[in-house]
Amino acid sequence: MSDGRFAYDGLDRVLHEKARLGLLSSLVANKDGLKFGELRALCQLTDGNLSRHLDTLHEAGLIEIWKGFEGRRPQTVVRMTSEGRKRFVAYLEELERVIKDALPKASGAAGRAKPLPPGFQPA
Amino acid sequence: MSDGRFAYDGLDRVLHEKARLGLLSSLVANKDGLKFGELRALCQLTDGNLSRHLDTLHEAGLIEIWKGFEGRRPQTVVRMTSEGRKRFVAYLEELERVIKDALPKASGAAGRAKPLPPGFQPA
Repeated sequence: MSDGRFAYDGLDRVLHEKARLGLLSSLVANKDGLKFGELRALCQLTDGNLSRHLDTLHEAGLIEIWKGFEGRRPQTVVRMTSEGRKRFVAYLEELERVIKDALPKASGAAGRAKPLPPGFQPA
Repeated sequence: MSDGRFAYDGLDRVLHEKARLGLLSSLVANKDGLKFGELRALCQLTDGNLSRHLDTLHEAGLIEIWKGFEGRRPQTVVRMTSEGRKRFVAYLEELERVIKDALPKASGAAGRAKPLPPGFQPA
């Protein structure tokens, strides 16, 4: 096995983080965009966490954030950019490769491991 | 769409973190275990990061850490536990569902989004 075989450089941390993965999945399923409150409910995030993750996605150019009013109430609408869509597809395809690599080995028969050399102790 | 639809509670952060995902994939492909130096090379981690992530996986009961000597040199060997294998399979299957959910929507034709309500401005 070669060096870096499991470094998974294609798994961009901006997209891989669990809450952001949920946000991107929500947005890709709703091309007209989602309101702040809708995203909060779909992804079960606090206001603070949602804001922080949206900032990260926005800075990376993956989403657009629009601000306006619905009647007198301030409203925020979030949409995926076409660049975001492209990078999300690339990320998901990389993730698919990781699973195809690991799942057959993980779910197959484990078999018995070789005994450790003499004198080895559990940490 | 119901609340929590994209919360992805099944994606345990202990397993989802990118470096640990690489470590678990390495170990599941090597049932006899891997030496510290082998894991470091396969996952391209520094000594400090590797130690920290191994501690996290060990505390979660996913791996065994064995210490001994090879000649006069101290040696660490890491193996996946059967509990770790079981949880890794469950995690990978959950990840597979996330991809099956998102990838068709992300890679299909986006179509044109509806215009935003009047007065909305980009943040």
